[in-house]
Amino acid sequence: MKYPQAIEQLIEALRKYPGVGKKTSERYALYTVNRLDNAAIDEIVEAYLKIKEDIFQCPVCGNITDIDPCPICRDKTRDQSTIIVVEEARDIIPMEKTNNYKGLYHVLNGTISPSDGVGPDDINLKQLLKRLKNNTIKEVVLATNLNNEGETTARYIKKLLEETDILITRIAHGIPAGGNIEYADEITITKALEGRRKI
Amino acid sequence: MKYPQAIEQLIEALRKYPGVGKKTSERYALYTVNRLDNAAIDEIVEAYLKIKEDIFQCPVCGNITDIDPCPICRDKTRDQSTIIVVEEARDIIPMEKTNNYKGLYHVLNGTISPSDGVGPDDINLKQLLKRLKNNTIKEVVLATNLNNEGETTARYIKKLLEETDILITRIAHGIPAGGNIEYADEITITKALEGRRKI
Repeated sequence: MKYPQAIEQLIEALRKYPGVGKKTSERYALYTVNRLDNAAIDEIVEAYLKIKEDIFQCPVCGNITDIDPCPICRDKTRDQSTIIVVEEARDIIPMEKTNNYKGLYHVLNGTISPSDGVGPDDINLKQLLKRLKNNTIKEVVLATNLNNEGETTARYIKKLLEETDILITRIAHGIPAGGNIEYADEITITKALEGRRKI
Repeated sequence: MKYPQAIEQLIEALRKYPGVGKKTSERYALYTVNRLDNAAIDEIVEAYLKIKEDIFQCPVCGNITDIDPCPICRDKTRDQSTIIVVEEARDIIPMEKTNNYKGLYHVLNGTISPSDGVGPDDINLKQLLKRLKNNTIKEVVLATNLNNEGETTARYIKKLLEETDILITRIAHGIPAGGNIEYADEITITKALEGRRKI
């Protein structure tokens, strides 16, 4: 037995999301049918349509925004001499939550990954170089992830900027707060030892 | 820092789903923004609108359907003498998958739950009694779940039909196929022992 076509269609549509398999998608679709009234469905539909209408990438930094430039780029009280380079817009949120960083960001919207056919021209890199030309930037903090693609991308950018006066740094990797050394993987341990500092 | 309003709105809208907390909803919303193109978003929106337009409850049995009556109720080759009573439309699917049952269903769309203020009149029960009046039904199989509400509802329906000639049965509860007795909970074990049969 199959569900009515409209339900099968919603099951299929919601499977686009990462971690949403057939079972989960079915659960969402049936919940929609059995528990959501028309007003609730309208709310979801309108939210999706608003995403399509309002959201775009900030032409300056690549962050997701509904104003041009984004709130961070337009905030002239922020430190205009430092840029943190991240892979995705969502990486900005936890950094902002610390309330300890008041500089700028640059979102690559991807990583260099030769095995997936993603080269330097396929990520938001040219725009970063353009931003660095105006000479106000003194430091670029590479905050790509600690995996093959993130490391490759960080190394590539470092090499690209080697001839400039800009200070290139990499965020620290090591044992996280509350993390247990006993259970830490070998890459984390290696990075934690490499990054050790005199106290 | 908050996300642009359209994103916050989608995060809020998707939290309606069971098991979708703030983190998961945020992940879905950002995936929508970062990875889904307009065509993919349109597909989701259209699926939701189609649910609103096409899907309703079968007036005969309470199953979700896009035709009146639903495909099961209109199939006169099915055994018209047996009704399985289930809590939700989704409970029909696994039963149909067995290919071993060819009778009818009745969907209560809920369970009697005094503590939640849900009484017999709040579930699809009157329509069941109406169906039973036409005398073709010889057996009602109570397939509500094995928990307080499901048991209460089953007992209530049994009492309601006590004076009729209809055979009232309850589906068997016990150790599931592949289930390990060692890890079975006490209610399952109790039911498995109560339901033991001579072999």
